[in-house]
Amino acid sequence: MACGIDALKDRFYDLNALGTSMSVLHWDQQTYMPRGGAAARAEHLGILSRMSHELLTSDETAKLIDQAEGDLQGDEEAEGIVRNCRREFENATKIPGKLVEEKSRLASHAHEAWVEARKTDDFSKFAPQLERMVEITREEAEHLGYEDHIYDALIDMYEEGSSEAEARRVFDAIREPLVKLVKEIQENGRPVENGFLHGDWPEEKQAAFTQHLVASVGFNFDHGRQDVAPHPFCTNFSIGDVRLTTRYQRYLGSAIFGSLHEMGHGLYEQGSPMKWDRSPLAGGVSLGVHESQSRLWENIVGRSQAFWTRFLPDLQGTFHNLTTVKLDEFYRAVNKVEPSLIRVEADELTYNLHIMVRFEIEKDMLSGKLAVKDLPDAWNSRYEEYLGITPNNDADGCLQDVHWSMGSIGYFPTYTYGNLLSYQFWACLQHDIPDAYDSIARGEFEAIHEWLKDKIYSKGSLYRPKDLIERVSGKPMEADDYLKGVDKKFRAIYSI
Amino acid sequence: MACGIDALKDRFYDLNALGTSMSVLHWDQQTYMPRGGAAARAEHLGILSRMSHELLTSDETAKLIDQAEGDLQGDEEAEGIVRNCRREFENATKIPGKLVEEKSRLASHAHEAWVEARKTDDFSKFAPQLERMVEITREEAEHLGYEDHIYDALIDMYEEGSSEAEARRVFDAIREPLVKLVKEIQENGRPVENGFLHGDWPEEKQAAFTQHLVASVGFNFDHGRQDVAPHPFCTNFSIGDVRLTTRYQRYLGSAIFGSLHEMGHGLYEQGSPMKWDRSPLAGGVSLGVHESQSRLWENIVGRSQAFWTRFLPDLQGTFHNLTTVKLDEFYRAVNKVEPSLIRVEADELTYNLHIMVRFEIEKDMLSGKLAVKDLPDAWNSRYEEYLGITPNNDADGCLQDVHWSMGSIGYFPTYTYGNLLSYQFWACLQHDIPDAYDSIARGEFEAIHEWLKDKIYSKGSLYRPKDLIERVSGKPMEADDYLKGVDKKFRAIYSI
Repeated sequence: MACGIDALKDRFYDLNALGTSMSVLHWDQQTYMPRGGAAARAEHLGILSRMSHELLTSDETAKLIDQAEGDLQGDEEAEGIVRNCRREFENATKIPGKLVEEKSRLASHAHEAWVEARKTDDFSKFAPQLERMVEITREEAEHLGYEDHIYDALIDMYEEGSSEAEARRVFDAIREPLVKLVKEIQENGRPVENGFLHGDWPEEKQAAFTQHLVASVGFNFDHGRQDVAPHPFCTNFSIGDVRLTTRYQRYLGSAIFGSLHEMGHGLYEQGSPMKWDRSPLAGGVSLGVHESQSRLWENIVGRSQAFWTRFLPDLQGTFHNLTTVKLDEFYRAVNKVEPSLIRVEADELTYNLHIMVRFEIEKDMLSGKLAVKDLPDAWNSRYEEYLGITPNNDADGCLQDVHWSMGSIGYFPTYTYGNLLSYQFWACLQHDIPDAYDSIARGEFEAIHEWLKDKIYSKGSLYRPKDLIERVSGKPMEADDYLKGVDKKFRAIYSI
Repeated sequence: MACGIDALKDRFYDLNALGTSMSVLHWDQQTYMPRGGAAARAEHLGILSRMSHELLTSDETAKLIDQAEGDLQGDEEAEGIVRNCRREFENATKIPGKLVEEKSRLASHAHEAWVEARKTDDFSKFAPQLERMVEITREEAEHLGYEDHIYDALIDMYEEGSSEAEARRVFDAIREPLVKLVKEIQENGRPVENGFLHGDWPEEKQAAFTQHLVASVGFNFDHGRQDVAPHPFCTNFSIGDVRLTTRYQRYLGSAIFGSLHEMGHGLYEQGSPMKWDRSPLAGGVSLGVHESQSRLWENIVGRSQAFWTRFLPDLQGTFHNLTTVKLDEFYRAVNKVEPSLIRVEADELTYNLHIMVRFEIEKDMLSGKLAVKDLPDAWNSRYEEYLGITPNNDADGCLQDVHWSMGSIGYFPTYTYGNLLSYQFWACLQHDIPDAYDSIARGEFEAIHEWLKDKIYSKGSLYRPKDLIERVSGKPMEADDYLKGVDKKFRAIYSI
C-alpha cells in the first residue's frame, strides 16, 4: 500500500484518468462526433463529472492530502503536488454539491437561451437566465470566500492569487494609452490595405499550410495533431498527446494566426517534463500564463516582419494569387488596426479594449451596481467610449460571447494578462537572445524554444503563477513592456 | 432515492459511462491518436478498467441486483435488465481480481512477444507466453465453472449458452460438405478472374465510394461516421453514435466488403430502441448474432448479383478503369474461391475452414491434448487437410491472429456462428419478402431494414441469444440453410 505522497499521487492519477476521459469526449464532440451522439454524450459527461467530483471531495481524498502534507520533508515537487491537490480539493468542497448541480443545470438552459437570443437578436430572451446566473455565481463566490471584493473569489479560480484590484490596476494602466494610440492611428496613420487576405481559400490548402507552419515552428506532430473545430481550442490528453484545432474562413489570417495561437498553448503543454505526466504538476499553471504563450507565438513571433521573411514565400507557393504581395505590405496587412465589434476578430491592439468592456461590466453585474436589464446600454456606451463604435444590435454586442451563459465570470481578464505577460516574457527573452528576430527570419526557433522551455514549460505547475512570473521576469506582472512593445510596433507600422 | 429497477439502471448508467469512455479512448487510439499518446493512454485505460471493475463487483452492485430482482413484477424489460446485469456481475466476480490483473499484464507482454515473433517468423519467441496464457485461461475457466467441457466456460463469455458440444456439432456438420465443395470448385470449376480488382486506387476515391455505398444501403451518417483504422472494427458510444472504420488496400474489395461488413454491425447498433440507450438492453446480444448481421450485408447482400446490378455503374463512375468490366464478371470476381493462408483475406466459402482449424487447436491446447510447442505442426497439418495448402512459415500460419495473445480463447467459433445465422435469418427474410433481391437490384433496402429491425435490432439484448434465434427463425442455430445457400450460390458461379 502506497502512503504519503505516493498515495496522494495515485488518487490524482485516478482523477486525471476521469478528467482526461472528459477531455477526449469534449474534443471528439467538437471535432468528429455525429450530431446523433449529442444527447448521450451530455449524459456521459454529466456522469463522469459527478464521479470525478465525488472522488475529489471524498473524505479519503482529504485524508490523503493531510497525510502527504505531514510527510513533505522539504521536497519541492511533493510540496507543489500537495499545494495543487489542496487547492483543487478546496475549490471543489467549498461549493455545496447542490449549488454545483444547480449551476450546471442552469448553464445548459442559459446556453440554449443565449443561442436563441443571439440568433434572434433579442436580449430579453437571455436576460432572465443571465440574471439567475449572476445570482448563483454570487452565491458561489460567497462560498469560496474573499477578503476585499466579491470578484476576487472568482478570478482566483482562473488565475490563482489574482484579484479585482489587480485587474483594475492593469486596465487603469492600459486604458488611456491604448485608446489614445488607436485614435492616433485612425486619424493620422498611413492606411493599411488587407483586402488581399480575404477570398476563397481551399480548405485543404489552408490545412496543409497551417500544419506546415506549426510543424516548422516546432510543434511535434508525433505528440499531437491538428483538427478542425467550429471554435478553435487546444486540449491535451497527456504530455505526449496535445490536440490543436483550427478553422478555415474567408479571412486567411483566421486559420494562420488561430493555428499559431493554439500552437502556443500546445507547445507549453508538450514542454512539460515527462516525469510529471498525468500528475497535478504537468501542464500550464494558469489561464493568464497559458495565454501569454499563445499570444507570444501568435502576435510577437507570428505577426513579426521576421517571421514572414521566412514564411511568405511558402505561403505564396501555396496560394498563387498572393505572389505579387510584398513582405512589407503583408506585414502591415496582418497587423491592421481597426476598431471592430467582435472580440474574436479583433486586432492585437484593440483586443484589450474588448476585454476591458467585459471586465468592467461583469464586475458591476456581480456587485449589483449594474442591473442585467441595463447590460446592453452599458455595453454600447463603453464600445463607443473605448473603440469609437456602437453595435447596431445586441447579437454583435453584448450577446457575442459564450462565457457568461456558462457562468464563467472572472475569466475575461486572463486574456489581457496573457497579452501583458507575452511582452513581459519576450523582453526577458530578447535580453538573453538579442538576435531572436534574426533567427526567426532564418526559420530557426531552437534558441527561443530552449529559453521558453527552461524558464516556463519545464516548471509546469510547480510554482504559483505569481511566483513563476517573478522567477521568469524578475518582477510581478505589469503593463510597461506591453505598452512599450505595442507603441513601438504600431507607430512604425502606421508611420506616426 | 431511486429503488428497485431504477436504482439498478442508474448503477449501470454509471458503468456505461465508464465503459463508453474506454470505447472512445480505444477508437481514438486506433484512428487519430498520435504515437506519443500511447503510454499515457495505456495508463488511462488501465485505471478506467479498474474503476469499472470495482464498481461492477462492489457489494452495493450486488445488493442493487438482488433488490431489483425481488421487485420484477413480471415486467419483461426489467427481467432482461436484471438478467444482463447479473450475468455481467457474476462473470466479473467469479474470477479473482488478482487473476484478472495477472491476465491483463500477461496480455500486454504476450502481445508484444506475438508482434515480435510474427515479425521475425519465430514461434519460439511467443511459445512461453502462449503457454502461460493457456494456463491462466484454464484457471479462469475453472473459476467460471462448467458442466461438460472446460471450453464451455470460455465460449459462454462470447456467446451466452453455447458450448464445446455445440461448436463441435456445427463444425462436424460443415466440415465434409465444405471441404468437398472447395475441392470440386478447384478441380472442375470454370475459372474466375479477379486481377482487375487489384491496383492503385486513390484513397479519397475509396473513401468516397464506400461512404456512398453504406449511406445508400441505409447507414445513418447523422448517427455515425466512418474513419480509417489499420484493423477495421465497429464500435459505438450510444445508439445515436456508431463508428465504422475501414482501410484502403491494393485489393479494392478490401475496402468495399470490409465497409459493408462493419456497416452490418453498425446497423444492428443503430437499430436498438432509443429508449434503451446506455442501458444493458441496448445493442447486439452476442458475438455470433452480431456477426450474422455483418456477414448478411457483406456476403448475402453485398456479394450478390442484384447488389452490383445497382452499384456497379456507380463504382465504374468512380474508378474509370473498371468501365469495361461486365456485371457477371464482377459478380464472379468478388466471389472467387481460393484456398489461402490468411483468415482475414479468405473468401466466403473457405472462411469457416480457417475458423475450424482454430477451434480444434484452441480446444486441444486448453484440454492439454495439444502441447503449445506442437502448435505449428498441428496448424500446418490441418491447413493441408482442410484447405489443401501448407503455410511456408509460422508468420502466415499459427502466428497470424492476435486473439490468443490477448487470451481470447473461445472466441473464434462465433465467426462461424455468424456465417450460419446470416443464412438462417436470410432464409426467413426471403420467405417473408420473396422479392428481396429484386428490391436490392433497384437499390431499395427499406423492406429488408424493416424486417431486420422488427425481428432482431429492436430486441436489443432483451432475450438470450438462443431465445432470439428461435424467435426469429423458429429453430435453433443449424447448418442447413448455410450449406444449402453456399452450395447453390457457388455451384452456379463455378458452373458445377
